[in-house]
Amino acid sequence: MKLPRLLVTYKVGAAPDDIEARARALAAEQSVEMPVEAIGDARVLAEVVATVESVRATSTPDAFDVTLGLAADTTGHEASQLANMLFGNCSLQPEVQLHDVIFPPGYASAFPGPAFGVAGLRERVGATARPLTCTALKPQGSTVAHLAHLAGTFARAGIDVVKDDHGLANQSYSTFAERVPAVQAAIAAANRETGGRTIYAPTFSGSPKAIAEQARIARDCGVGMALVAPMLVGLPVFVEMRREFGLALLAHPAFAGASRVAPALLLGKLFRLFGADATIFPNHGGRFGYSRETCLGIAAAARAPWEDLAPIVPVPAGGMSVERVPEMISDYGMDTMLLIGGGLLTAGDALPGRSREFVRRVRET
Amino acid sequence: MKLPRLLVTYKVGAAPDDIEARARALAAEQSVEMPVEAIGDARVLAEVVATVESVRATSTPDAFDVTLGLAADTTGHEASQLANMLFGNCSLQPEVQLHDVIFPPGYASAFPGPAFGVAGLRERVGATARPLTCTALKPQGSTVAHLAHLAGTFARAGIDVVKDDHGLANQSYSTFAERVPAVQAAIAAANRETGGRTIYAPTFSGSPKAIAEQARIARDCGVGMALVAPMLVGLPVFVEMRREFGLALLAHPAFAGASRVAPALLLGKLFRLFGADATIFPNHGGRFGYSRETCLGIAAAARAPWEDLAPIVPVPAGGMSVERVPEMISDYGMDTMLLIGGGLLTAGDALPGRSREFVRRVRET
Repeated sequence: MKLPRLLVTYKVGAAPDDIEARARALAAEQSVEMPVEAIGDARVLAEVVATVESVRATSTPDAFDVTLGLAADTTGHEASQLANMLFGNCSLQPEVQLHDVIFPPGYASAFPGPAFGVAGLRERVGATARPLTCTALKPQGSTVAHLAHLAGTFARAGIDVVKDDHGLANQSYSTFAERVPAVQAAIAAANRETGGRTIYAPTFSGSPKAIAEQARIARDCGVGMALVAPMLVGLPVFVEMRREFGLALLAHPAFAGASRVAPALLLGKLFRLFGADATIFPNHGGRFGYSRETCLGIAAAARAPWEDLAPIVPVPAGGMSVERVPEMISDYGMDTMLLIGGGLLTAGDALPGRSREFVRRVRET
Repeated sequence: MKLPRLLVTYKVGAAPDDIEARARALAAEQSVEMPVEAIGDARVLAEVVATVESVRATSTPDAFDVTLGLAADTTGHEASQLANMLFGNCSLQPEVQLHDVIFPPGYASAFPGPAFGVAGLRERVGATARPLTCTALKPQGSTVAHLAHLAGTFARAGIDVVKDDHGLANQSYSTFAERVPAVQAAIAAANRETGGRTIYAPTFSGSPKAIAEQARIARDCGVGMALVAPMLVGLPVFVEMRREFGLALLAHPAFAGASRVAPALLLGKLFRLFGADATIFPNHGGRFGYSRETCLGIAAAARAPWEDLAPIVPVPAGGMSVERVPEMISDYGMDTMLLIGGGLLTAGDALPGRSREFVRRVRET
């Protein structure tokens, strides 16, 4: 019987004469982490040492695509050990980047995957055949009253998801326990007024104990979604949130750039596997340097057919404006959530109007 | 009263004509994450928006050192939000690297810091004025019986700390619950035989619930130390382990992706702040590309005077050999733990002798 293996592709810098040896060293590093010659156990050699499946030249000199076969059992079928096997030690080698993973059939079933996904989020906000809209409560440092007022304004304008700025955590000037019930109440009041179904996604952060307490507060006041940066709280914590809290999960990419993993793999494929329902990423042409191709790759990974895992919602963001709505819908299609934060807040006193304009443009495009 | 601020230095790539604007944009990104002009609250402008403290040219063209002043309160005095403020969004900007942080007086007191540090680990293993020794149980995939046998061999040779390979997690072929009591028993038996005080550091990984269960198993059988990769389990989980388990903590750099965060800051300063007692890093001249200067910088950060935080033990590793013992001691001094894993295991049948040779060289140098 052939052992199930993950096919893991790395971008590796090396001279052509060195690449075969470099690929074998990478296979040892990402599996047994010792000289393979010194291993006496035949089963370990056959079933645990990673295999070099292919080495391919790229269009860049001295840059190769190396695909390893990692034994599925070495990952322990768990998020932290999966990340360890994919990019633990070799994340420390600057000439290596993690590019993509193809999982063996059935592998994903050990992970929770999204609870809601595209269809579930559409149902939650009552949107059938249009992109969703999202905005952020900013800036951090604002009083709870100001944030609640902003949230009410956005909800009355009909924006589907109002999230905390990811910098709103549990600071003394706006603790989670004070902020979240107040903002949720403002949104609920606006929903009653308009008949709308805006949902609130506060930022969850801190230790596992702190997060459990935040979940209790959020559920007690009727919050339905959590904004979480998996790389800040820890990948296995994100998985545990998915398994235990019953909240929709909006993944934030903060701190994700620290480890040189291809964005489509990390923000698209892996965050989805671990339970995200929607994934925020910095759209091209904003404040970040991702190319259009990278961004479309994230969206494709979020929605590609994948066994029993529901497709999830890509959320382009990072300096977007109402003017770019038609172009973004053209790029990403209907199963998308457009996130405009600062681009609404710069309207000042005209905020209600610009928020309604955002909603209108999305519905009409 | 002057607001306490963290002085955070980034390496930023930009043209000379653009760097002042780039620095201001970075200050907004890492604090309020919106256009500063659109903020009406004077308190937010004064106390929350990050300040540009300095912009300095470097010896590289189009590369600058930018130091921001981040308001201490924005970090929530907690690990995940601290990482978010330091390198959340700008980790996604490839032209930005996080270089160093100077914390305001008293800031560290909100974090646990090391429970044992250099002095505590010396006491645990009964070593007064010599470097400590460490090795690893490998390869993953080995049977529990083989790993326990290896551990007994290392302990009888007098090695101070026997750690799991960081790839040993909770896989089906060697579960934590089976492996850890067996290895600890082998080490305890060897200690009784020799009068030695070898300690075992098994790998902790997985979700917070899984880690709590691992702590219970480890304490029940007398394990005194945990090997943990903070970037895999999550920084706040690492802090919670420090606060709750009473185990010494050996930090592993897996997934630290160190080329974007300066290794001395992450593996030295931050892991120490969060509670590590010892910190493993890839020494120069081994399988990783860190320079000697980078490695000495990590060791310096681990041991520099810092308010009430005990100095911790730097652990150079990653392809080291017994032959390099004198050079490593010359580089790093006595308050160091030398880690040789594969370099012992390649001895095959001569493993007991090479292990004793490692211990003897360290004691005699």
